Amino acid sequence: MKRIENVTIVGVGLIVGSFALALKQAGFSGKITGCDSSAVLHTADAFGALDLSEEDIVAAVQNADLVVLGAPVRTNLALLATIAPHIPSDSLITDVGSTKTEIAGRAKDLFGSDALRKFLPGHPIAGREVSGVEHGDAALFRGAPWALTPQGGRQALIAPEFSRGMHREFIEMLELIGARVVVTTPEKHDRVLAFTSHLPQLISTALATTVQSELGGRPELRDLSGRALREMIRLAKSDPQLWSEISTSNSDNIREALSLMERNLAALREGLGTQRFQRLFQEGSVLDPDAEPSAADDADPPHFG
Amino acid sequence: MKRIENVTIVGVGLIVGSFALALKQAGFSGKITGCDSSAVLHTADAFGALDLSEEDIVAAVQNADLVVLGAPVRTNLALLATIAPHIPSDSLITDVGSTKTEIAGRAKDLFGSDALRKFLPGHPIAGREVSGVEHGDAALFRGAPWALTPQGGRQALIAPEFSRGMHREFIEMLELIGARVVVTTPEKHDRVLAFTSHLPQLISTALATTVQSELGGRPELRDLSGRALREMIRLAKSDPQLWSEISTSNSDNIREALSLMERNLAALREGLGTQRFQRLFQEGSVLDPDAEPSAADDADPPHFG
Repeated sequence: MKRIENVTIVGVGLIVGSFALALKQAGFSGKITGCDSSAVLHTADAFGALDLSEEDIVAAVQNADLVVLGAPVRTNLALLATIAPHIPSDSLITDVGSTKTEIAGRAKDLFGSDALRKFLPGHPIAGREVSGVEHGDAALFRGAPWALTPQGGRQALIAPEFSRGMHREFIEMLELIGARVVVTTPEKHDRVLAFTSHLPQLISTALATTVQSELGGRPELRDLSGRALREMIRLAKSDPQLWSEISTSNSDNIREALSLMERNLAALREGLGTQRFQRLFQEGSVLDPDAEPSAADDADPPHFG
Repeated sequence: MKRIENVTIVGVGLIVGSFALALKQAGFSGKITGCDSSAVLHTADAFGALDLSEEDIVAAVQNADLVVLGAPVRTNLALLATIAPHIPSDSLITDVGSTKTEIAGRAKDLFGSDALRKFLPGHPIAGREVSGVEHGDAALFRGAPWALTPQGGRQALIAPEFSRGMHREFIEMLELIGARVVVTTPEKHDRVLAFTSHLPQLISTALATTVQSELGGRPELRDLSGRALREMIRLAKSDPQLWSEISTSNSDNIREALSLMERNLAALREGLGTQRFQRLFQEGSVLDPDAEPSAADDADPPHFG
């Protein structure tokens, strides 16, 4: 059976750069080829993330067993179409983009009934407000969820052709670098992430804009602020282009999440000085993302035989 | 000249408990008396914050050189009125509440033209989402701003009677424990803090409420969320009663800050997928609370002596 010996990472940014560093640190014995502009490849090479550099995407993928698309979500859609005719027939493609419904649909268009065999959509839920392979970190995925989102979710991966072979080997790679593999549908992923990731990002941005318009450049900003503000605006330094693409790709869910948030802020504002304010405050205080969930669910990892 | 030998802290929570621990660590040679319920005093004593415990507030303040009010803002208003007749005539009262206009006005009502001599409103801009002296930390104020907000701001403290004596000695105490003393007016303080502290708190609460209503108790919450969400909802664990009082005490400013935030969120929502979205995103990304301000201002510390 074919094994993953040659990994090609396309669009060598923070996430796939960290993936390459993590693989090397975990003792991966195959070769990692990077594909990007020569400047980025030079940096990635200097940080020890690559064995080979290749600017030409066709050359970069034609001998790959595993291709990982690491560009922004819109670029990944185009890259998937570009590489589709050139990838070896028994190789696997994955991506690390923040939205999954759109690219899973694109794979269906490109590969038809072969879509899941060729492309397993992925999303490591880890990252930083900075971009670039120079900020790469081999420990970035340790303990973090890594979502895999085939159409149909967990059930789709139970078929024998996926419960062994490349798909299984890729999942073992993810576990090797310390990630917690979570399998769910693209639609559920995008709905949940709208609330757990995209909304927090846009709130941080809107808060920074709000504070900037009141206090930007004034000494009071530095003299009368503390950890609360700094922590809440950390994400506002994220890349606008990246987030523009994510938001466009998941706009319906994000629009709903933002509307609900606006309503909850308005309720606090209208409730100032009343009992309702404390009740709303209390409702938020019970949220605990680290709590043991009450029952097993589709989002649980699959069990491979 | 009278020196600060006896410090009484009233309402021994996280902030004044940490103040007491910081004073002791800095080598303060006077006595610290705590006034609270016997259970709280017992805890504070066990954590080494106190030299003396006194449940009766009149007994606790009648020999104090410095009284620090550490209760929630509404309680501090009542405490100020309670202790006013019992405090030695040459002693200083301060507080650590998050809003300053209301209590500075109360001092004016109680003490008239003597208000600033008797009461110097204060606010250390440091804290945690947890309460209680058992979470006290002698290092809490190191490098953090400690706002002092006499009516009239910095000019008011330049008078000779305040640029030496108790007021100056208190400021030196704050510097001794590593705080960065910032003098401004109560009105400016409350305006700025509405944006740098009260708004971030209410946003964190509203985000937690929003996520809770969509995902509370579901396994996806744990399986598909990361650092971004955890960091943005940390403050949502804060004490509802405390924040209800702060919000009521600074409601006009907070209402404006919330309205502006709601408008900025709506602008992002309406701009999804357009150029405007990226422009808004960019506007927020320039905010930098650690930037050197461009010019000196009323918020600068006064120069004594």
